[in-house]
Amino acid sequence: MSILNKSLFISFEGIDGCGKSTQVNMLMEKFLKSGDKARLVREPGGTKICEEIREVLLKNRDDVMADRTEALLMTASRAQLTKDCILNQLEDGIIVVADRFKDSTIAYQGGGRGLDIDYLLNLNEFATYGLDPDITFFIDVTAEEGSRRHSGKPDRIEGEGFDFQKKVREQYIKLAHMFSKRYIVIDGTLSPDKIHQLIWIEIQNWKK
Amino acid sequence: MSILNKSLFISFEGIDGCGKSTQVNMLMEKFLKSGDKARLVREPGGTKICEEIREVLLKNRDDVMADRTEALLMTASRAQLTKDCILNQLEDGIIVVADRFKDSTIAYQGGGRGLDIDYLLNLNEFATYGLDPDITFFIDVTAEEGSRRHSGKPDRIEGEGFDFQKKVREQYIKLAHMFSKRYIVIDGTLSPDKIHQLIWIEIQNWKK
Repeated sequence: MSILNKSLFISFEGIDGCGKSTQVNMLMEKFLKSGDKARLVREPGGTKICEEIREVLLKNRDDVMADRTEALLMTASRAQLTKDCILNQLEDGIIVVADRFKDSTIAYQGGGRGLDIDYLLNLNEFATYGLDPDITFFIDVTAEEGSRRHSGKPDRIEGEGFDFQKKVREQYIKLAHMFSKRYIVIDGTLSPDKIHQLIWIEIQNWKK
Repeated sequence: MSILNKSLFISFEGIDGCGKSTQVNMLMEKFLKSGDKARLVREPGGTKICEEIREVLLKNRDDVMADRTEALLMTASRAQLTKDCILNQLEDGIIVVADRFKDSTIAYQGGGRGLDIDYLLNLNEFATYGLDPDITFFIDVTAEEGSRRHSGKPDRIEGEGFDFQKKVREQYIKLAHMFSKRYIVIDGTLSPDKIHQLIWIEIQNWKK
């Protein structure tokens, strides 16, 4: 039985290795079981054009990508994703779950790379047609914890190291204050089941 | 003998088929002969990363690229080009000649696609680190003339057709008024040699 009578846009945010993707998958499964129509979108990526941009963005190469180029590519992909996979789904009453959305740009390119936050907020408005998530789950772990958990060959951005992830986390904490209405901060050191439970309660309580 | 004692940043703008690239090549040759160090940059493209972005941008495919994605990809490439090939060359006293620069975004994505001009101007400021050309040569031909001259298989943007090129041209004319200090409008129906001569005179007179 569906738990929601209306569409909902949920984003997941956090540093690399925070356990965000596990939670996204658990939530999608739960929606499936409960009979809610839900669509998962992943940043950067999601459509053919987005995947092409993702490839340029995350490729390890000798040339150094300019920070501003990185921010513009991220938002280029987001504009395509928002238009093709988010706005229309929400209009059709489908729940959209985003594994990263606009706040990742502020955290990574703003906090991590040091680009001007106000400019990036403006860039995001353009790329998302002014759309904000209804709920943002920030799965918070320290840079030490994230780095310990993270496995596999890192892509270009993940490979930035410990100090970078630390700055990204600090920016996420600022975002949680800045957008406190939609942010829910979750202790990422809890068990995956416990985190999932907390997330599900929040979703059920949404606009009750 | 060098005709300039200082660095200079020149951009060429115009609709597809205006004859801009011919003029860029003639000018580069002239600089070579006169002993001026000059570097040619081409938009979108110019570095390995820019070429990768160019490929995503101009590829003919079934999926429709969002107008905002197009604008963000254009400026992503520009940010890389400005950092890697323009700012440092100008600092080293080298003349830079750009076959398209920031005004192309305003003309094509603003005039052609109808995106908000103020937002695009802002996006350009970010991508170019606030850099403007010293001189912009706008080689003006009508959409009819441009279309008549244009040969070969058009890329995704060139294939937009006649009405699109007409709107692009109208926006260039507005830009020439908006940035009248740096714009020089040249009648693109004159002979290539005559146009080259006019351009050379303007460069010699620059800041005399």
